[in-house]
Amino acid sequence: MNTQIQSALEWRYATKGFDPSKKVSQEDLDTLLDAVRLSPSSLGLQPWKILVISDTQVREKLKAAAWNQAQVTDASQVIVFAARKNLSESYVDSYLKIVAETRGQEVEDTQGYRQMIMGSVMGRSDESLFQWNARQVYIALGILLETAALMKIDACPMEGFDAKQFDTILGLDETDYTSIVIAPVGYRSSEDKYSSVPKVRFSKEQIMKFV
Amino acid sequence: MNTQIQSALEWRYATKGFDPSKKVSQEDLDTLLDAVRLSPSSLGLQPWKILVISDTQVREKLKAAAWNQAQVTDASQVIVFAARKNLSESYVDSYLKIVAETRGQEVEDTQGYRQMIMGSVMGRSDESLFQWNARQVYIALGILLETAALMKIDACPMEGFDAKQFDTILGLDETDYTSIVIAPVGYRSSEDKYSSVPKVRFSKEQIMKFV
Repeated sequence: MNTQIQSALEWRYATKGFDPSKKVSQEDLDTLLDAVRLSPSSLGLQPWKILVISDTQVREKLKAAAWNQAQVTDASQVIVFAARKNLSESYVDSYLKIVAETRGQEVEDTQGYRQMIMGSVMGRSDESLFQWNARQVYIALGILLETAALMKIDACPMEGFDAKQFDTILGLDETDYTSIVIAPVGYRSSEDKYSSVPKVRFSKEQIMKFV
Repeated sequence: MNTQIQSALEWRYATKGFDPSKKVSQEDLDTLLDAVRLSPSSLGLQPWKILVISDTQVREKLKAAAWNQAQVTDASQVIVFAARKNLSESYVDSYLKIVAETRGQEVEDTQGYRQMIMGSVMGRSDESLFQWNARQVYIALGILLETAALMKIDACPMEGFDAKQFDTILGLDETDYTSIVIAPVGYRSSEDKYSSVPKVRFSKEQIMKFV
């Protein structure tokens, strides 16, 4: 497994050129999305929505809002990660409802947990909560990218798009969520010159310290 | 592979009780750290430092700065993720130096890339750059957590600690980096009651939309 993980992470790269004729199978897509769904998040709050875009016309609009980057239309699907712009008592209660359901408890049994969460959430600005939520979304992004690589599925994490336009196109405008990062997924084109460019990383010595 | 990934992500949980007698082997630790090192980041900038803490006395101090949570001393190692508090021209140039080295180019050959990066970096506040950097660090955290799970190594992502005290203890005070999230790694204790608590996740229907 050690070698397999390392090879997969060496193999992956931010794929610029996708082969439009190759599609991620439903089974593989389900695994990718399940990995995202199972991602951990602070206090378990999962402050995200995941939009999976296959529709050609919608993708043309998204592409126009993403500096016309071809990945948006050439990939098999585009996965859009949206973060919650705030956290509210009602959101925490919607989470505690599924905590109770999953664990066969009454919602009342989660009062201690509720107090603990509310202590971390209340009194913080929406901006601070949004930044916190955004970080959690990037955990899920990391897990998507590693899962894809292990399955030999290519992906291209992208922040270069107009979030407001994305939100309008995807119907997020009137919601508590906003698009923060996207990942087209699919299969690299044999003509993508970036696939053979050596991966650049700082050495262990440059970024790690052992104490 | 699909089943293996799903099982690993179902198996993992935020481990509260580690077995202090069980240590992560050097080989496995190397794989974990290499996965972190290979993590992608926006524009490839890798705005992070990773501290790997084994020393018992240092860990006692860190524990006191983390609400005395036992994971900090009971786990095999504590991995501290620090994010860069800013991005500067000199940092971008240190990155372009390894780009050129890795790709057998002259630094001058990276001028186009430099302009593109500087366009994304300059004119932004340190706070905005720090939040951006922090998100990238959480990609690496996600990859650490999935890698650990695939190797049946337990981990506990934790934000509950005093970052200022951590920075002082770890000598980050006078640097451009600050601790933002930690992950003790090791092996769960058979007595950790949390290991058998059902995982709580929103359903696919609740968090995903297909377009």
